[in-house]
Amino acid sequence: MNDAIDPEITAQVASLAGAARLGARAVGLLSRADKDAALHAMADALDSASAQIIAANQGDVARGREEGLDQGLLDRLRLDQVRVSAVAQGLRDIAALPDPVGEVVRGSTLANGLQIRQVRVPMGVVAMIYEARPNVTVDAAGLALKSGNAVVLRGGSAASQSNRALVAVLRGALQAQGLTPDAVCLLEEGGRDAVRALMTARGLVDVLIPRGGASLIQTVVRESTVPVIETGVGNCHVYVDAGADLDKALAIVVNSKTHRVGVCNAAESLLVHRSIAATFLPMVLAELGAAGVTVHGDAELELLAKEAGAPYSLATEEDFAREYLSLDISARIVDSLDDALAHVQRYSTGHTEAIVTEDRGAARRWVAEVDAAAVMVNASTRFTDGGEFGFGAEIGISTQKLHARGPMGLSELTTTKWVVEGDGQIRA
Amino acid sequence: MNDAIDPEITAQVASLAGAARLGARAVGLLSRADKDAALHAMADALDSASAQIIAANQGDVARGREEGLDQGLLDRLRLDQVRVSAVAQGLRDIAALPDPVGEVVRGSTLANGLQIRQVRVPMGVVAMIYEARPNVTVDAAGLALKSGNAVVLRGGSAASQSNRALVAVLRGALQAQGLTPDAVCLLEEGGRDAVRALMTARGLVDVLIPRGGASLIQTVVRESTVPVIETGVGNCHVYVDAGADLDKALAIVVNSKTHRVGVCNAAESLLVHRSIAATFLPMVLAELGAAGVTVHGDAELELLAKEAGAPYSLATEEDFAREYLSLDISARIVDSLDDALAHVQRYSTGHTEAIVTEDRGAARRWVAEVDAAAVMVNASTRFTDGGEFGFGAEIGISTQKLHARGPMGLSELTTTKWVVEGDGQIRA
Repeated sequence: MNDAIDPEITAQVASLAGAARLGARAVGLLSRADKDAALHAMADALDSASAQIIAANQGDVARGREEGLDQGLLDRLRLDQVRVSAVAQGLRDIAALPDPVGEVVRGSTLANGLQIRQVRVPMGVVAMIYEARPNVTVDAAGLALKSGNAVVLRGGSAASQSNRALVAVLRGALQAQGLTPDAVCLLEEGGRDAVRALMTARGLVDVLIPRGGASLIQTVVRESTVPVIETGVGNCHVYVDAGADLDKALAIVVNSKTHRVGVCNAAESLLVHRSIAATFLPMVLAELGAAGVTVHGDAELELLAKEAGAPYSLATEEDFAREYLSLDISARIVDSLDDALAHVQRYSTGHTEAIVTEDRGAARRWVAEVDAAAVMVNASTRFTDGGEFGFGAEIGISTQKLHARGPMGLSELTTTKWVVEGDGQIRA
Repeated sequence: MNDAIDPEITAQVASLAGAARLGARAVGLLSRADKDAALHAMADALDSASAQIIAANQGDVARGREEGLDQGLLDRLRLDQVRVSAVAQGLRDIAALPDPVGEVVRGSTLANGLQIRQVRVPMGVVAMIYEARPNVTVDAAGLALKSGNAVVLRGGSAASQSNRALVAVLRGALQAQGLTPDAVCLLEEGGRDAVRALMTARGLVDVLIPRGGASLIQTVVRESTVPVIETGVGNCHVYVDAGADLDKALAIVVNSKTHRVGVCNAAESLLVHRSIAATFLPMVLAELGAAGVTVHGDAELELLAKEAGAPYSLATEEDFAREYLSLDISARIVDSLDDALAHVQRYSTGHTEAIVTEDRGAARRWVAEVDAAAVMVNASTRFTDGGEFGFGAEIGISTQKLHARGPMGLSELTTTKWVVEGDGQIRA
């Protein structure tokens, strides 16, 4: 991993990021009207070019099938008429959102008459490293443009033909609008070395956002010298407290686990207070079992799971740390709220942690003491989502504490500058 | 640099950071009243122990003198009665500031009835690496405590006895208040390996703030896997535009350069529009010369500098990139606002960039196009400062774009969490 990077690839990446840097200077000064017009032009161009985009995508899908990609990945990779229309519409939806650039975050007039204000401005060049989901290519380009940034895209190699086709259409639309196509740059070649060069392109790339599995994110965090926003590993817990309304608890656990399993805000672990375990576990295990969920539980859950007809396997220490992203859930009976808090503190990835309770004191402690991007009372973990929160669009869900935490919308793709206006003030 | 870290030192650092982590959990839940009482107790304890603190400091100063530390460093290192009182008073001033923890940044009720709010919470464990300024030890401990964080302090070895004495007093005061002393931890031993272990203590340290010279900051940025907030390298420019009021310009340039030279918001480079150069340069060079400032200028400045009696040396490319932190300034005549913008874009470190002009269009372009933490019109660069901005206290000045940009106060030592409260909501 620490081998030198091929200097030719470093130079190629620097050249691409340098082009994006110039692109960023141009789009950073555009008015909202110009950016929105460009987003609509990009959307229309995608609709017009849908046949050639789908053809390129079919090449990727055929290659993926040959190479044995699993069904889930193939499904995420696939573009059809409906999906191309949806990503185009996504750009129009971004156009309809308020422009974060220029927002005055705070400001005041100092005693000496200096007027100071903190104003939202674009980051500059945003780089995204992600896997084989071509919709991310378009979403990221649209969110970056709306927030006045240029973007360098590095998608998964399984989607290379799709990404090339999509980016060609987007760049063409920018050019037709009289804007620089280098607001949207695709890093295609160079393999791992290109990714490493991108991660170390300090001064050229302002922020790097990895979207993908835990190993991608860990690699980026370890090797990057460019500032990183970590996204999305979620070992989310639902804790059903002694004071829970069991009907709400049942609905929340089942929804959190089964509404969509391959996503970071799905529940992966269930904690149940001992005082209600004998009542609640048979109910929830039966419903989870009916939905095809395997329960990975302590030995004391085995009999209950069998009686409820839920697939069961004995949990190991590792199970409690796992983000399954599948029809599996770890489960444990806890003796107290303190036990539940200690378990979450140990295994949480800091994404979303929910308590189900009608007990005001327990809810207050949960909210205060759990250290996560989202802490919930009596709600499904699936609500941690930019769309659900009303951001209108989402670039990912940050699980780090710096800069952005939780769903990231347009504001999180900006930084600020202080504007200081005076009339000749000097320091005494 | 990439040698393995001594495992024993790694274990020591992990143990210290682990203690700080437990400390953070405790102080993160304190009320404002308890934190303020602790800050006052710490201040009183410093006052009571001033004799022993000064004695410890004299040991450092004597050693520093033997080892040939320069006068500036010795002066920063020295503590006397007045300075100990001042750092103690600084803690009381921090107590008087509003508590950032618990601030609701934004919030709303969603269509489904979910109440969501983004609330400011402590980071957790803040690590500071800094040089031989014992006042930073106390300031950092106070700011961290007020914002609900624990702090791991790694000061310069030249201040080791002073820091040990100060931290012992602070920890004693915490303990006397019934609080955990591990809210303030000092990393004393272990040399470079200890610093490297601290920089890679992911999961134990939430944010690392280096304060010091460019080489310290670069090392931390390159090697750290813990999130970093870069502070303070400032190659700040003053651009005197064609439309400048020359009296204001004169005062601003001289103040920006000479008010205090060893600080990151001092001006290091002067740009003058050609149309006013013949009038303005003789004025400003005479005043700079009288203040003992050496001008590092293009050849065309040589004669003017000689006539004005200002020490002059021919500027190299390097001069325009330098943060002198001394009575030196680089200077250049530019042909246009565009030239000035291009020069700043090339050499700026993104700290503070000032224009002097009465021309509204020029001011607007400067504010929009210069990419820096602070952009100023008709004001001294020295105003980029937490105290001047009314933050009441400052942990440093961030020159990065992520999380914090410009002077960092208490809010910048916090993160946020989303609190989601429902009544059984699930996703459809």
